Amino acid sequence: MRQAGRSLPEYRAIRGEGSINDAIANPDLSTEITLQPVRRYGVDAAILYSDIVTPVHAIGFGMDVVPGVGPVVEKPFTSSDDLPRLRPLDPEADTPYVLETIDNLVAELDIPLIGFAGAPFTVASYLVEGRPSRTYHNTKVLMKSNPELWFALMDRLADLAITSLQSQVAHGAEAIQLFDSWAGALSAADYERYAMPSSAKVLEAIGETGVPRIHFGVGTGELLPLMAQAGADVVGVDWRVPLAEARRRVPADRALQGNLDPAILGAPWEVVAAEIDTILESNAGHPGHIFNLGHGVTPDTDPTVLERVVEHVHAHRD
Amino acid sequence: MRQAGRSLPEYRAIRGEGSINDAIANPDLSTEITLQPVRRYGVDAAILYSDIVTPVHAIGFGMDVVPGVGPVVEKPFTSSDDLPRLRPLDPEADTPYVLETIDNLVAELDIPLIGFAGAPFTVASYLVEGRPSRTYHNTKVLMKSNPELWFALMDRLADLAITSLQSQVAHGAEAIQLFDSWAGALSAADYERYAMPSSAKVLEAIGETGVPRIHFGVGTGELLPLMAQAGADVVGVDWRVPLAEARRRVPADRALQGNLDPAILGAPWEVVAAEIDTILESNAGHPGHIFNLGHGVTPDTDPTVLERVVEHVHAHRD
Repeated sequence: MRQAGRSLPEYRAIRGEGSINDAIANPDLSTEITLQPVRRYGVDAAILYSDIVTPVHAIGFGMDVVPGVGPVVEKPFTSSDDLPRLRPLDPEADTPYVLETIDNLVAELDIPLIGFAGAPFTVASYLVEGRPSRTYHNTKVLMKSNPELWFALMDRLADLAITSLQSQVAHGAEAIQLFDSWAGALSAADYERYAMPSSAKVLEAIGETGVPRIHFGVGTGELLPLMAQAGADVVGVDWRVPLAEARRRVPADRALQGNLDPAILGAPWEVVAAEIDTILESNAGHPGHIFNLGHGVTPDTDPTVLERVVEHVHAHRD
Repeated sequence: MRQAGRSLPEYRAIRGEGSINDAIANPDLSTEITLQPVRRYGVDAAILYSDIVTPVHAIGFGMDVVPGVGPVVEKPFTSSDDLPRLRPLDPEADTPYVLETIDNLVAELDIPLIGFAGAPFTVASYLVEGRPSRTYHNTKVLMKSNPELWFALMDRLADLAITSLQSQVAHGAEAIQLFDSWAGALSAADYERYAMPSSAKVLEAIGETGVPRIHFGVGTGELLPLMAQAGADVVGVDWRVPLAEARRRVPADRALQGNLDPAILGAPWEVVAAEIDTILESNAGHPGHIFNLGHGVTPDTDPTVLERVVEHVHAHRD
């Protein structure tokens, strides 16, 4: 459950007020934040505490994550003059704290650690818009009006994701998740042309390491076949598409991840339990299913509800 | 093209800084704002300048539309004690300015006027959340944890929409559009159970007047069959679903409205023209198509581009 930590009192107690980039740059803190939900919930895998902008931040693109706002870029990406600002990542030199965090976690955990990267489209949307957007206006105009520059940008972002994920796997991540959180803003035709090739490059490169690749998005009902085709072993599904229907949209050899709506976690327990049961019925015992939320945990979620969610799912499995 | 006005310099010149509620309450101003895009663009129908919260504002629920934020409610809807705050609408007494605006428009226009109402789910989401939301957390929790209260709320909102739309039709609106802008946040199962019955009640009641009913939403790919089934003559489609695919999801006797992505209107003209051509090819000459954007016009859109969009579509038709 991504962002499960931020609803925890023990998280708020150690996290402080600063930028998430500062927390990520502190291996002891990042290790502890990654471990907190594992200890509390007894989930079956841990996901690295990270952010989709960690590599671009590390190479000095000039972006920060402002609490209550999200990623904000000092000088947005507008022209080919901005391409050199996206130099290759040297994980050992640029993000030693990520690798130290992973080393710590691999030593501590007796469950798999999932590595973390932003997909090129979603990272590009932050670089181009300069701040979180509802329309992705500048991003869509750039991709359609200057495809050469767009693909040069996407290629650099793909290389950053590849280099980062390869280093995470080399240090012991046993799976990776590629977050294309905002891909659902695109039509299937635009996704296939402007976003998928770069994600496919990332997923293919990581495929060579042999670890399973989870491909995550929200509002991606129309994109599920393409997100599988891009080279995912596991395709994320949000609550808008039942798992049985999602399975009809991806090849039979792919697993699905999802798809409880995090917005209903504030309802009485019997409502939450019924939602979980509906999801498991829709999955119909298919072995290729990672039970998860369809999107991140909201900060006001009651941790005791998440404890019961994990217990309830495990009771079904056992 | 909904909200086409707000990108116009002549709109900004007369609109002022105040709440949209104040502008709607001024029939001369509302009439002029409705007419401006008709004059500028030569579109085939006019849509009443209004807001989905106009009826609840008029009966004194205590909500305003804050520029740059959206609808904000002073005391959100939380319990059955709030139901009496949603008394029936008396259009002549509560919204005489809406009817005067329609009278003015019917006298001025030589094209049809489309009446305007918010669908119960989307209006409820504003009343319950208290402000624009990305998760609809409180709304989803209310509908699932207290369905009796939820349906009582939805029923009052359906009645408000019915009364408002009936008065709009009685004064000369020749079609109506029911805006369920945020229905796409729901799964099909939840939409069918918690939202569709109230929208169906509205659409059925207006069906008795004989005017065509347009049913609008965004991100509703999974909901298109149900939005048609609710009683729509025309189903809105955003850019995420090609028209040819949308047609497979609704009965053959329904028309479609859409589906140009407003976010690409800032691209060079040849890009915009190619997008229009792709939509018209996807429609394949089907007579049941209202060309439109898939969502509202963004304020920074260049009006000359919208002029060319209308010309280009008309050139195809003629």
